[in-house]
Amino acid sequence: MNNLSPRRTGGRAARRASRAAPLDTLMRPVRPGLEGGTLKVLTDAQITRIHDAALDALDRIGLSGAPASGIAYLTAAGAIQGDDGRIRFPRALVEETIARANREITLYSRDGLNDLHLGGARVHYGTAGAAVNMVDVDGRNYRESTVQDLHDAARIVDVLDNVHFCQRPMVARDIPDNMEMELNTVYACCTGTTKHVGTSFTEPHHVAPAMEMLYMIAGGEDEFRARPFVSNSNCFVVPPMRFATESCEVMERCIEGGMPVLLLSAGMAGATAPSTIAGAIMQATAECLAGLVYVNAVKPGHPAIFGTWPFGLDLRTGAMSIGSGEQALLSAGCAQMHQFYGVPGGAAGGASDSKLPDMQAGWEQMCSNVMAGLAGVNMVYEAAGMHASLLGFCHESLILGDDLIGQALRCVRGIEVDDETLALDQMEAVCIGGPGHYLGTEATLARMQRDHCYPNLGDRSSPKEWVEKGKPDLVEKAVARKEEILAQPSAARLNPRLDAEIRKRFAIHL
Amino acid sequence: MNNLSPRRTGGRAARRASRAAPLDTLMRPVRPGLEGGTLKVLTDAQITRIHDAALDALDRIGLSGAPASGIAYLTAAGAIQGDDGRIRFPRALVEETIARANREITLYSRDGLNDLHLGGARVHYGTAGAAVNMVDVDGRNYRESTVQDLHDAARIVDVLDNVHFCQRPMVARDIPDNMEMELNTVYACCTGTTKHVGTSFTEPHHVAPAMEMLYMIAGGEDEFRARPFVSNSNCFVVPPMRFATESCEVMERCIEGGMPVLLLSAGMAGATAPSTIAGAIMQATAECLAGLVYVNAVKPGHPAIFGTWPFGLDLRTGAMSIGSGEQALLSAGCAQMHQFYGVPGGAAGGASDSKLPDMQAGWEQMCSNVMAGLAGVNMVYEAAGMHASLLGFCHESLILGDDLIGQALRCVRGIEVDDETLALDQMEAVCIGGPGHYLGTEATLARMQRDHCYPNLGDRSSPKEWVEKGKPDLVEKAVARKEEILAQPSAARLNPRLDAEIRKRFAIHL
Repeated sequence: MNNLSPRRTGGRAARRASRAAPLDTLMRPVRPGLEGGTLKVLTDAQITRIHDAALDALDRIGLSGAPASGIAYLTAAGAIQGDDGRIRFPRALVEETIARANREITLYSRDGLNDLHLGGARVHYGTAGAAVNMVDVDGRNYRESTVQDLHDAARIVDVLDNVHFCQRPMVARDIPDNMEMELNTVYACCTGTTKHVGTSFTEPHHVAPAMEMLYMIAGGEDEFRARPFVSNSNCFVVPPMRFATESCEVMERCIEGGMPVLLLSAGMAGATAPSTIAGAIMQATAECLAGLVYVNAVKPGHPAIFGTWPFGLDLRTGAMSIGSGEQALLSAGCAQMHQFYGVPGGAAGGASDSKLPDMQAGWEQMCSNVMAGLAGVNMVYEAAGMHASLLGFCHESLILGDDLIGQALRCVRGIEVDDETLALDQMEAVCIGGPGHYLGTEATLARMQRDHCYPNLGDRSSPKEWVEKGKPDLVEKAVARKEEILAQPSAARLNPRLDAEIRKRFAIHL
Repeated sequence: MNNLSPRRTGGRAARRASRAAPLDTLMRPVRPGLEGGTLKVLTDAQITRIHDAALDALDRIGLSGAPASGIAYLTAAGAIQGDDGRIRFPRALVEETIARANREITLYSRDGLNDLHLGGARVHYGTAGAAVNMVDVDGRNYRESTVQDLHDAARIVDVLDNVHFCQRPMVARDIPDNMEMELNTVYACCTGTTKHVGTSFTEPHHVAPAMEMLYMIAGGEDEFRARPFVSNSNCFVVPPMRFATESCEVMERCIEGGMPVLLLSAGMAGATAPSTIAGAIMQATAECLAGLVYVNAVKPGHPAIFGTWPFGLDLRTGAMSIGSGEQALLSAGCAQMHQFYGVPGGAAGGASDSKLPDMQAGWEQMCSNVMAGLAGVNMVYEAAGMHASLLGFCHESLILGDDLIGQALRCVRGIEVDDETLALDQMEAVCIGGPGHYLGTEATLARMQRDHCYPNLGDRSSPKEWVEKGKPDLVEKAVARKEEILAQPSAARLNPRLDAEIRKRFAIHL
């Protein structure tokens, strides 16, 4: 904790301490890691068919494009390179890999208060993506995103209860040099939030300096390796069925540096993946299985997230579409594949095609977020703030997403059925000789905070009260909340001496 | 069909004919009656516990408030009136009723093109409610709803593919006389849409004149009885566990007149029902089981919808709250009780606490709509247009709801897994010696219309295209669509001679 600034406000410190208290956390109506799994969009027989087809695809078609190092790792593990250069994966190799892969992964937070324990059908929501624009809601404008926008997004994530991790959602376009941009991305996220950070390196030689920075922030290499609070999102394939050569090299560097990896397969159904939901899930599954073999060939048991991220496409225009029902089914189906293999998995949910935080954004974000949660996706990526089919990020929408995800999490939590909740005795007391209603009964009051998830900005007032309050506008409330959050100093900022050291060593743009 | 005006436009007639063609309908990506059931928020053991508690409640606590006629029907069937006046239901009576109740109900449309075949986990969405305000989106105003607003809502429902029935969503407050208001409600809905209409009579003596009007519209009493295109929503209980005396008498008149009934139990969790989700579902189940015994005692096998509509409450304020995750769980859990009993059922979904069609409205409407659908609610009531915790109805939101429900229905439809959709052969052809992508493949193009549900007003354009189009606003697009719909004559209007007869007999305010 010595890497945190000592100038923390009392209120914030108290809130953090309160969040750390396990009993208190258990009293909250929703929390990270609630267990999903009530939604099964695939039957067991369908899961088996997808699995079989994926193994066939790996055996018959295989993947091209592996770097020389990858070919060496994979063939040493038992994969076979054909005359056509493609690496094919015998069924037994894949099955053995699944059997010995890491099944429980912790994605650490820097301060230990928001560690994410992935596995089973435990659900976490967070940001992600590579938007190139910021949405300015006031002027309804799209403009290029900057490193300051990214830092601000991380700071907002830091205070939102229902956004559990901060994978970088946008590209710092004001930093033209690629390596500098990626180092600043790490800095901007880590100084904005102590929650788990995700980033994505594009070139293998960017990894070493980033690791150097992270080891400095962690207080040493061993400290980082013990609790890696940053993971790398590896677009290790260019679907269909082709390794992304450089990204695979990046992945090897990350594994060596002690950083968990997200095996991200982002096929677009109808373009780089089959247009059918089943086909897109099958291909993503095959690709991620190849990735899992790769990771375990480099370092057995290294933490890897099974990142089946198939995306939808609007086939009328060929444009990406992320807010559809088809998208929600894609991600929910993927969750069942993760659970079938028993490996921690992630998928996309909660992004919108709409350009603004309007009604369309609300229905699209909820549809895939709640279904991903109900299906038990461990890591729901792009869950808040994402617009324009992933091209735009919006701070106000991120803030509203916290409310939205709260309700989705309430649905994930589900229904408790026991003598107390069935309330038969209470019903009898109320109906026979009682007041004829349950208002203010001890049972009602006792569960008021524990059972019900209340919105922060969502409005539940009557029309009359709403008029009296001056007809508050939802987006304007989010703007005000954003300003309030950003007016405070970042609670995740570094100790000034450490910060100075980092700034001396790296060109920090913030 | 002779009750329809002959002055129908060719385009509209063609669309209706097209909707009637079964093959064409099957080609549509979504349609009424898609089978839900992939979401199970209750385990089988939990369902059994709720069922047992409900039977215990009926046996131990029973219901007060039955009218004399109801007491006669119920005790003749085997229920027992205690010294305290309450009617108690022996377990065997309830179980026998469940066994012989009508398990497959058709809710008819007037023109036969939109009949709803309830049963199993087949899902239909529609309007409902008793809002007292209209939401004017232009001025962000709430004003009293009128009979013209109601008629316009029915006309809008008539052209929306994904809003399958029109239960009256608001009260015609410009007609002070209660009977006149209810007769005009029937007229306004039936002349606005040929889809199935739901209404709600408050007094037993309102039923006969309404039946007279409906028999006239149907072309005779036998014609109406053969294909009743209007059903009655009976708030037959005042929860907890008290029959609504007059509403029960209304129900008896409706059964005698040949009208299907909705057994509506609308407890508010924390006020008129236990605050827990399990308790609220249990009480609604008990009450609807009592209603089912009642209906079957009056007329065995009479079509009755098991209307468990428990609503949420914001326990901080005691105000009704309908947009929460708890609400979505309530309705999804109820669907499983309907399926457990094998009786057609309905529940509330898709209503919002928000005052306007904003992002909150979008997420709230989607959350309960998609979960109700995935759980397989036969009739999802209040699925579109409903705001302010049921106090306001909005035409523009209704239109946007059509898009929203389309995506929810796409999720209900689920994932088809077979050799064609798994696309392994296609994958091989694409990857090995093929183009390396699936764009424009025969398989992709062939399924483009069948698999994908495209929004009508939802925007999927890129930020650049969106700017070029002048940054279209979602709600403004809905306003324009509303004006376009209402500028056309109602396709459901009556033949002028019949209309004149009705106007001679009844005081029609439209």
